[in-house]
Amino acid sequence: MPTTKTSRSRVPAAARVQRPQEGTAERREAILRAAMKVFATRGFHSASLVEIAEEVGMTHSGVIHHFGNKEQLLVAVLAFRDDDDVVTFEDHKAPKGAAFLEHLILTAKQNAERPGIIQGYTVLSAESVTDGHPAQEYFRERFVGLRDMLTDALRIVTEDDLPASTLDEAASAIIATMDGLQVQWLLDANAVDMPVSLRMAINGVLRELHAMRQDAASE
Amino acid sequence: MPTTKTSRSRVPAAARVQRPQEGTAERREAILRAAMKVFATRGFHSASLVEIAEEVGMTHSGVIHHFGNKEQLLVAVLAFRDDDDVVTFEDHKAPKGAAFLEHLILTAKQNAERPGIIQGYTVLSAESVTDGHPAQEYFRERFVGLRDMLTDALRIVTEDDLPASTLDEAASAIIATMDGLQVQWLLDANAVDMPVSLRMAINGVLRELHAMRQDAASE
Repeated sequence: MPTTKTSRSRVPAAARVQRPQEGTAERREAILRAAMKVFATRGFHSASLVEIAEEVGMTHSGVIHHFGNKEQLLVAVLAFRDDDDVVTFEDHKAPKGAAFLEHLILTAKQNAERPGIIQGYTVLSAESVTDGHPAQEYFRERFVGLRDMLTDALRIVTEDDLPASTLDEAASAIIATMDGLQVQWLLDANAVDMPVSLRMAINGVLRELHAMRQDAASE
Repeated sequence: MPTTKTSRSRVPAAARVQRPQEGTAERREAILRAAMKVFATRGFHSASLVEIAEEVGMTHSGVIHHFGNKEQLLVAVLAFRDDDDVVTFEDHKAPKGAAFLEHLILTAKQNAERPGIIQGYTVLSAESVTDGHPAQEYFRERFVGLRDMLTDALRIVTEDDLPASTLDEAASAIIATMDGLQVQWLLDANAVDMPVSLRMAINGVLRELHAMRQDAASE
């Protein structure tokens, strides 16, 4: 947040607000939800802080006060989304092995009930490959994390019988299927059944890995 | 193209140009290639006609003269891309059955040599789900066409033994894998081997369909 000459803005936001702490947290959350909605419908570059502010009945400078600028707001939106995410990172209570794969299919099913979140994820992840996009590092790390989680699950399911590179390739394919199905589904929800197609891909990849193990065993 | 009061602009562009027809075609192609590059690096909404014009050493109004406006230029870029595309629509010489699936894997391999085209496709297809995006209809129809081609190929491979809905679900999964791998690869080319992961998904889906046929036969 840029510093200004008024004493008011040198005081941390939390100390300044007279209402209970919950008020600020709720206000911030309302801005994050509005920002996700506007980023999803316009994309990051076309989204305006004015429109986000209007969504929550706030001024542009009110949003700036809470989040600094549009780039910082995007980073906050992505971090916020993770808390809400069915595929949680670094969740040591995450299901393991085959149960993790089932969890992904359940996620695809739940995703069909939350098109706004899915649209935001789809638009921002693809937009992040454009030059200098502020979410590029976020999504690069997100995919590293997802691949690791899936590789672990596949290692358990295949009983540590296959090379890490093979498990990585399988993990990339499964994550890709989830993401690619979202684009098709957002364009034409009636044409695509995300959980059914994802289950087909996951079952298929497991069959392929199983065949590779048998080939390796018979050599 | 908007009409103006000068007699010059009421004459069709082709009749007006004194150079041979090739000159106009080459100029248009240069603009389309520049536009694809700028759309890929900025996204459609953030791309400016001025930047596209600068790429080809032309004025903004020169680009307008050839393509009307940014929306029309995008539509022309997408149509142009298809001519250049490895996955060609309505190509009656397209390989059939298992050969079509091999063709997709070859395409994924060739795609790794043309990051600019892949970035354009990835950014524009995901951006097309945003409200009122001018490429929405294009991508919706593109996916319908791709699913049909893949469903046909899978029908041949599975000897017409499975319901159309199952083949559709499998086709969606395979297309999704191709598209999703591109996002991961654009963010981190060393982390993803597109043709290897795609082959794993395709082989896997074929194994799953084969198992479904066996289940159906033994019932």
